[in-house]
Amino acid sequence: MVATVAAASCVIGVDLGGTKLLAGVADEHLAVHHRAYRQALGLETGDLLDACVAAVEEARAAAPADIQAVGFGIPCLMDQERGMAVMAVNLPLIDVPFRDIMTERLGLPVIVDNDANCAALCEARVGAGVGCSELVLLTIGTGIGGGIVARGHLQRGASGAAGEPGHMTIDADGPPCPGDCPGRGCLEAYVSGPALARVGGRDTATEVINAARSGDAAAVEAVAKMGEKLGAGIANLLNLLEPEVVVVGGGVAVHAGDLLLEHAEKTARARALEPAASNARIVVAELGIEAGMLGAAMLALDGGVV
Amino acid sequence: MVATVAAASCVIGVDLGGTKLLAGVADEHLAVHHRAYRQALGLETGDLLDACVAAVEEARAAAPADIQAVGFGIPCLMDQERGMAVMAVNLPLIDVPFRDIMTERLGLPVIVDNDANCAALCEARVGAGVGCSELVLLTIGTGIGGGIVARGHLQRGASGAAGEPGHMTIDADGPPCPGDCPGRGCLEAYVSGPALARVGGRDTATEVINAARSGDAAAVEAVAKMGEKLGAGIANLLNLLEPEVVVVGGGVAVHAGDLLLEHAEKTARARALEPAASNARIVVAELGIEAGMLGAAMLALDGGVV
Repeated sequence: MVATVAAASCVIGVDLGGTKLLAGVADEHLAVHHRAYRQALGLETGDLLDACVAAVEEARAAAPADIQAVGFGIPCLMDQERGMAVMAVNLPLIDVPFRDIMTERLGLPVIVDNDANCAALCEARVGAGVGCSELVLLTIGTGIGGGIVARGHLQRGASGAAGEPGHMTIDADGPPCPGDCPGRGCLEAYVSGPALARVGGRDTATEVINAARSGDAAAVEAVAKMGEKLGAGIANLLNLLEPEVVVVGGGVAVHAGDLLLEHAEKTARARALEPAASNARIVVAELGIEAGMLGAAMLALDGGVV
Repeated sequence: MVATVAAASCVIGVDLGGTKLLAGVADEHLAVHHRAYRQALGLETGDLLDACVAAVEEARAAAPADIQAVGFGIPCLMDQERGMAVMAVNLPLIDVPFRDIMTERLGLPVIVDNDANCAALCEARVGAGVGCSELVLLTIGTGIGGGIVARGHLQRGASGAAGEPGHMTIDADGPPCPGDCPGRGCLEAYVSGPALARVGGRDTATEVINAARSGDAAAVEAVAKMGEKLGAGIANLLNLLEPEVVVVGGGVAVHAGDLLLEHAEKTARARALEPAASNARIVVAELGIEAGMLGAAMLALDGGVV
């Protein structure tokens, strides 16, 4: 999105990924006026916080209007009440009072949330679920992220930890979850980039997907099998939450596209109860790599109450 | 609950079970002033609707004040927008415009909802989850019923069909679901009265539970195994919804009590992600057989907006 008129007031949305971070200046119409990027990969906690501050300050300096608030989407377990990054798999954030630190260093109101929650909110408002008040997002990458929107609001649970569809077991007696999770047979064990690479017998999920696109039978089969497991997980979500739309994002899903989604959708519709089995839409995320940043900006615009 | 003062206005809550129905007059403090029972087992659709009307009229005649509205809790798939009983396993209600029929025949405002939703609301407000805004209820009987309360409201999904934890798969390649469900390896296939009877090698779940209470090793083992499967399902709910409390009700769970719940709780806490694994309470339902009727009365008191 490109701004065409001067903005009266702006916010900054920050998507803090495991490899890089993106800070974007957005106005109240979500037009993006400036993007500031920083590396995140390999940084210690202090340097990572410095990089956040630097990216926000660069964005703030380039903004066409005063910045009202800053929203951060972080791939971590978040204690929503305390604004605390409790634990992150790919970033050095363990019991970091992220909101308080940023509020002090930036001198601005700061709202923090899980990055997948930010993406879910964004897809529900301006993406694949526009107009829907009931939405589930799954992002498939190294693991599975997720976010739930119910009655138009983020469903955060008791402390902000709700929305982990990747850690639904779909095989209670299955192998231990490969992530930092004590579960067994979690959806994430079968549906992820590393799982696809392993089942497809290649180094990366990208190679398996490319081979499947070229018609390699084993690769097509590996993607289809992952789609079926994903579909079983989506059926669970349909039966439990009856969303209007299930949005599947993340690098692996976006790259695989219909190769994956067709199987997931077919399986989900075959296994779920009516009326969700027929009525729910199951679609690829629309907003791509900027959904997290835009969702963080929405949180900032809304003052964190959404 | 017994009324001690005259009520200014009352509602009627009706719990429509597969074997009998209970209509109770409740005042705004949920004190119950009269209970009317009717048989439901074996009735055709028309006779069932007549029995509902007769029970409500009996209750209405005995009420200490004017009746403002009637709430019905029905064990069926409900189209919330149309007030339609779409499908029921144990009652002859298929595409019955229940709300419209009762509104016309009773001449009163009528609110309808799934019986487990009514029970969940009741447990959240005055039962095992009192003071909680995030609650999940599972009822274990012939099958599994369920209801979700989020932000203090019933979570109904797009059309009212949300809240079917019994149809989460916990074994994606497992046997077909025994219920009227196209899924495989659903929680209900492992956790129900019939499942316990089968695994315990007795005619009924009650016999297995009684044998377990008497120390029969095979029966103890059967209850424990069912508890572990239930725990795996509860872990899914903790990871997805992060409730403050998981309430387990229904005849089988209430009868088995800690024999079942201890295993379920241990498994759920071992498998779920923090902080829900430590923080969520996992408890037996408090309100017993009147939770559905009281929850239906709450819906009537609230005008169906909860």
